[in-house]
Amino acid sequence: PKEGLEFADYTFEEHFGRPIASYPPRAVLFDYIKGRVEKADVRKWIRFNTAVRHVTYDDASGKFSVTAHDLAGDKEYTEEYDYVVVASGHFSTPNVPSFEGFDTFNGRVLHAHDFRDALEFKDKDLLIVGTSYSAEDIGSQCWKYGCKSITVSHRTAPMGYKWPDNWKEVPLLTKVEKNTCTFKDGSTTDVDAIILCTGYLHHFPFMAEGLKLRTANRLASADLYKGVVWVDNPKLFYLGMQDQWYTFNMFDAQAWYARDIMMGKIEVPDRAARAQDVVDRVAAEDKIEDDYGCIEYQGAYTGELIAETDYPSFDIAGANEAFFQWKKHKKQDIMTFRNNGYKSVMTGTVAPVHHTPWKDALDDSLESYLGKG
Amino acid sequence: PKEGLEFADYTFEEHFGRPIASYPPRAVLFDYIKGRVEKADVRKWIRFNTAVRHVTYDDASGKFSVTAHDLAGDKEYTEEYDYVVVASGHFSTPNVPSFEGFDTFNGRVLHAHDFRDALEFKDKDLLIVGTSYSAEDIGSQCWKYGCKSITVSHRTAPMGYKWPDNWKEVPLLTKVEKNTCTFKDGSTTDVDAIILCTGYLHHFPFMAEGLKLRTANRLASADLYKGVVWVDNPKLFYLGMQDQWYTFNMFDAQAWYARDIMMGKIEVPDRAARAQDVVDRVAAEDKIEDDYGCIEYQGAYTGELIAETDYPSFDIAGANEAFFQWKKHKKQDIMTFRNNGYKSVMTGTVAPVHHTPWKDALDDSLESYLGKG
Repeated sequence: PKEGLEFADYTFEEHFGRPIASYPPRAVLFDYIKGRVEKADVRKWIRFNTAVRHVTYDDASGKFSVTAHDLAGDKEYTEEYDYVVVASGHFSTPNVPSFEGFDTFNGRVLHAHDFRDALEFKDKDLLIVGTSYSAEDIGSQCWKYGCKSITVSHRTAPMGYKWPDNWKEVPLLTKVEKNTCTFKDGSTTDVDAIILCTGYLHHFPFMAEGLKLRTANRLASADLYKGVVWVDNPKLFYLGMQDQWYTFNMFDAQAWYARDIMMGKIEVPDRAARAQDVVDRVAAEDKIEDDYGCIEYQGAYTGELIAETDYPSFDIAGANEAFFQWKKHKKQDIMTFRNNGYKSVMTGTVAPVHHTPWKDALDDSLESYLGKG
Repeated sequence: PKEGLEFADYTFEEHFGRPIASYPPRAVLFDYIKGRVEKADVRKWIRFNTAVRHVTYDDASGKFSVTAHDLAGDKEYTEEYDYVVVASGHFSTPNVPSFEGFDTFNGRVLHAHDFRDALEFKDKDLLIVGTSYSAEDIGSQCWKYGCKSITVSHRTAPMGYKWPDNWKEVPLLTKVEKNTCTFKDGSTTDVDAIILCTGYLHHFPFMAEGLKLRTANRLASADLYKGVVWVDNPKLFYLGMQDQWYTFNMFDAQAWYARDIMMGKIEVPDRAARAQDVVDRVAAEDKIEDDYGCIEYQGAYTGELIAETDYPSFDIAGANEAFFQWKKHKKQDIMTFRNNGYKSVMTGTVAPVHHTPWKDALDDSLESYLGKG
């Protein structure tokens, strides 16, 4: 729900001028983010159409060399920097596995990263590989927009929700022959399209060896002190690289934290202490028993960073509670949970119920979502 | 036809043990290329799973620094080289234009580069943007596999062949609204998918400024002496960057030529002469009046390189003639021209007619193509 990702310093109510429902579509969220960017007036500080090609660090000068490519002017140039912040996102580089027989498949094979419009899959039989949010959400959208059937293939365990009648969960895909998919239990299904909801890779081809983050998709990232500061060189920061429950407000807390280090307001301990911090965080994560524990862990982490900066504090326990309710509503009914409203811990407002139940809302535009309010 | 791209030192007959028809599908061509690679036993000299990230040249040492990423081991390293040959292909980076309203389109938008299987588009109404070989070939394949209709949108001129009844050519796309496409003449068409056959970009993000090829898609590449040697630094080569009629055998001639320079068998003239060579080639190309002239120009270019190396010479006029006949057969009937056989200038054999007319051959596998011969 939007209550789990609200910026503490720029609420949905401030942006839209009134409370809105809890599950806004893409266009509405994008508008909200844009509003925050405009309010902060930061676009003038950004070089657009510029790809960073190579970042190295020179021990002698204590500076980073950043080679960038001005795509509009087609010019490459190198500049020196005291600090580097990598914030290229957790969902940039798809993890695309291949399965035997994909070359014989007569339909579309795509990664969730390339999914655009559920209407494309109307009247189609779909195979979804994976059990992450992408699998659940893309499957639900395709169901809502009239796909014929959905088969979700899992490696370890099914998602286990009470799915609609034309939705089934099967073990891992073993091979494809033309349009027939075979699964580990020997069962087969004919499909028209295969959507790989198989996650993302940490991929930083532009960072020199020794500066490149290598971590699993987990709450406690490897090699990042406080989840943000490169252990081997505290002038390098990575933002938002964790497996995520909290999002926008956690990214903010991380950004404020990195900023305060660069401004000398926060002191970074020595390398041994930085490395120990990572070890402690990993150990704490390993003790978590369920998703509720994960939410609490990441809430506490976000709160910890906020406490050390001047990012507006908010009721972490209350935000956790919104996530808990969301999980419970999903378990009750995976196809109606989006009709619920949750309480913003920023404004105290409980979100209004959307004018149209999710299942019947077929126009995902901003105008439609905000209209008839 | 395959007669236009046959390796002079490894014929289709040598590979398959007998003559085969003139328009082999992908799997057959791939098998042919693999056979040549195996015969030459060059795989042992190739580092696979390795991405080149950055190439620079040092004037003082006269050497190139090549930073490469071993993807399997996830290690980056830098090595020095005397020569660098860029052979990353002409069709690597798609040119993907956007049109107004793409974000409202409820179907698939893809570039030709991502086209895999015509069966995906069975019973669909298709829009193809572009008039290159990709447009012609992808359209024809989709027609053969039963798409409902094809609309091809051109910027300058229609292809002008006698297309099937469910195929039309229209002016440039101006906007898309949901599934309705509007063209420059005000006409509209509803489609299920849009395929952008809009060509490719020369894109060398791994080459440092000053070593990066920047050229239009034309027969006479900018900045390459003999179409191969970097004018500013004759230790750098680019292979196969030209707009292409000739392919495999031209690439071979270029490779042999580059090899002979590196081995000291061919002497490179001074910078002024190298630059003048480019000017002369561009001027000669600018005088060409039609496609037949383009074929002759590139045939002569290929022959010129062969004459300076020990690549097996072949009858260029005869190869040109195969291209000419192919063009004439296309003009006669765009949907049956693939049923013709042409004469190999390498072996003198006229290709047999394929066992099944192209329109009725719905199995594109190697087995099917070679079977029932």
